[in-house]
Amino acid sequence: MRRRTLLAGGALTLTAATNAACTSAKSTVDIRPPVVPFYGPRQAGIETAAPANATFLALDLKAGTDRAALARLLRLLTDDAARLTQGVAPLADGQPELARTPARLTVTFGFGPGLFAAAGRPGPVQQLPAFTVDRLQPRWSGGDLLLQLCADDPLTVAHAQRMLVKDSRAFATVRWVQRGFRRGAGPQRNVLGQVDGTANPQPGTDAFARAVWNDDGGTTLVLRRIRAELETWDAVDTVGKEFAVGRRLSDGAPLTGRAEHDPLDLTAKNADGLPVISEFAHAARAHVTDDRLRIFRRPYNYDEAPGADGTPDAGLIFASFQRDVVRQFVPVQRRLDEADLLNEWITPIGSAVFAVPPGCGEGGWVGEGLLAA
Amino acid sequence: MRRRTLLAGGALTLTAATNAACTSAKSTVDIRPPVVPFYGPRQAGIETAAPANATFLALDLKAGTDRAALARLLRLLTDDAARLTQGVAPLADGQPELARTPARLTVTFGFGPGLFAAAGRPGPVQQLPAFTVDRLQPRWSGGDLLLQLCADDPLTVAHAQRMLVKDSRAFATVRWVQRGFRRGAGPQRNVLGQVDGTANPQPGTDAFARAVWNDDGGTTLVLRRIRAELETWDAVDTVGKEFAVGRRLSDGAPLTGRAEHDPLDLTAKNADGLPVISEFAHAARAHVTDDRLRIFRRPYNYDEAPGADGTPDAGLIFASFQRDVVRQFVPVQRRLDEADLLNEWITPIGSAVFAVPPGCGEGGWVGEGLLAA
Repeated sequence: MRRRTLLAGGALTLTAATNAACTSAKSTVDIRPPVVPFYGPRQAGIETAAPANATFLALDLKAGTDRAALARLLRLLTDDAARLTQGVAPLADGQPELARTPARLTVTFGFGPGLFAAAGRPGPVQQLPAFTVDRLQPRWSGGDLLLQLCADDPLTVAHAQRMLVKDSRAFATVRWVQRGFRRGAGPQRNVLGQVDGTANPQPGTDAFARAVWNDDGGTTLVLRRIRAELETWDAVDTVGKEFAVGRRLSDGAPLTGRAEHDPLDLTAKNADGLPVISEFAHAARAHVTDDRLRIFRRPYNYDEAPGADGTPDAGLIFASFQRDVVRQFVPVQRRLDEADLLNEWITPIGSAVFAVPPGCGEGGWVGEGLLAA
Repeated sequence: MRRRTLLAGGALTLTAATNAACTSAKSTVDIRPPVVPFYGPRQAGIETAAPANATFLALDLKAGTDRAALARLLRLLTDDAARLTQGVAPLADGQPELARTPARLTVTFGFGPGLFAAAGRPGPVQQLPAFTVDRLQPRWSGGDLLLQLCADDPLTVAHAQRMLVKDSRAFATVRWVQRGFRRGAGPQRNVLGQVDGTANPQPGTDAFARAVWNDDGGTTLVLRRIRAELETWDAVDTVGKEFAVGRRLSDGAPLTGRAEHDPLDLTAKNADGLPVISEFAHAARAHVTDDRLRIFRRPYNYDEAPGADGTPDAGLIFASFQRDVVRQFVPVQRRLDEADLLNEWITPIGSAVFAVPPGCGEGGWVGEGLLAA
């Protein structure tokens, strides 16, 4: 799917924005158009180039929120999202001035198992199996309805979050909020210093579509909060870190290659006859050769206040999109769980799975296929 | 003081960066050079145009941290800051790859009353007097040593924070951390939707220098965490909000003017003979006519996770720089405390005051004038 984007020239009406044709910005400078279309067969915020700031917010449905109530909730939130992403204040916006800077805002909805149960529909997603590395905390896990809000401007994210939470209050409570960030431009690195996202299928390609999109335009999201054990990671030297990862820290190239996107050579041996990339290195364990079995990672970093003694509380909000959690995500995670050298320095502390329904056209709403009477 | 800035073209050495001449970026696009010089007679991060992300971090000195220990701590942190701001990893950096994107990073040091006491020096700052509007929480107040870290990229801020906290651990504990954000470009608004910073003295002008800089290159910082009561503010209509503020929400113009920077006319009357701008409006109460008595506000917004019921936890990290807290900040705050209509919707929940020492030249360190034997 080509991204249709728009360079906004001032105040926008919803109709003008959603009808606007593609305008591509050509410059040596990184210019990113501030408006991402909301309506379409697939939800935005997945194939969309990831902006610098994200909030992942999970809601729990209140008892008695049935299919009809869910339909009202999703109609309302869809309308809010359609407006906010185009720089237009929702009708009940108490601070409409804050809606005028969309900053590539996307709002992506995900449906947890509890939402399907409340709707009386069979759920296409279930929670993940247990992994031995997991130290999951309920405060970062589960949730009935996920909102993924991404934008280049954190004030835009904060305002959109406020509007959507306000309009959800009659139906749901806030289960957790995870705020994340990425570099605004250029290569991505996580808080361990690693280049991130190298093995991803590329948005816009057939390989991406095969890995991510179901025929109906839906997909699934696995969201895991992974704490980085920075204290002990700091103590490892570069050789040790690169051995654990299987890639160079400086540029993300595999230890058997010269550039970031060179293929892994898992057969290459060093002078002692040992594999250059250990079979237990993270890159080797996560390696997937079949395009259809790859996952698309769209992670954000987190960094909360350190403890009084300076202990960091930082890590990765791992977000992966794939057609099928069981066929694509679970096998990779099992291989990592069994024997990934990096496990010594990363700890999953939260986990949730959501079905991501297709997008909708103007006049429609996200979840209509599931929830309409 | 002219800002000396540098467009970095790759890996930088500390010397190359600090010796580089000014390169100004001319373009219709907002290009901001990624490196702000560290060394100079005044600390960076004050007159520097404020980037999108900031962390304010307060340390408490451990018992027994005397003047000599403080000198070691400040030498160490100055060296870290000098390197990190120029895109160079400190010697003990466990993730040197993360240091290569300075993103206009500045590190600004502030000294609280406790630091002066530990150094056995008379303190030029004291805590503020009590204000009736205050509902101060210890967890957001006080602190012996403040680090203000600002950058366009939140990963850069996170990495710098990690390095500086790590190198402080032998001397101090973390008292509080406040993370804030502003729009990356364009007019600033706070979470109440108001245009922010209109009445500020303009960086680079004589008026700024008179209001902010002491003869030795130092200044003072007042830092207050001000919660926005968004629930009740949302319920007020535009007329009511603008009456409380004395300015239009749409563009920040005073109710007696047409553009944001038009002067307030506090004598103008409406058809009923009443003042157009109430004497109790925020803009009227905060109004200062003498340039030397103005304060320079460099605030950031905050937005923490809402409560389960959706109650927001958002507001302003109010940061003001001025030569003299007692002559400049306190009188304005007293007038606001006595009768500011806006008080109904804002609540100070944290407060701290710091002396901001002068900057230093290459080979020197911040605090040398105070702490050198």
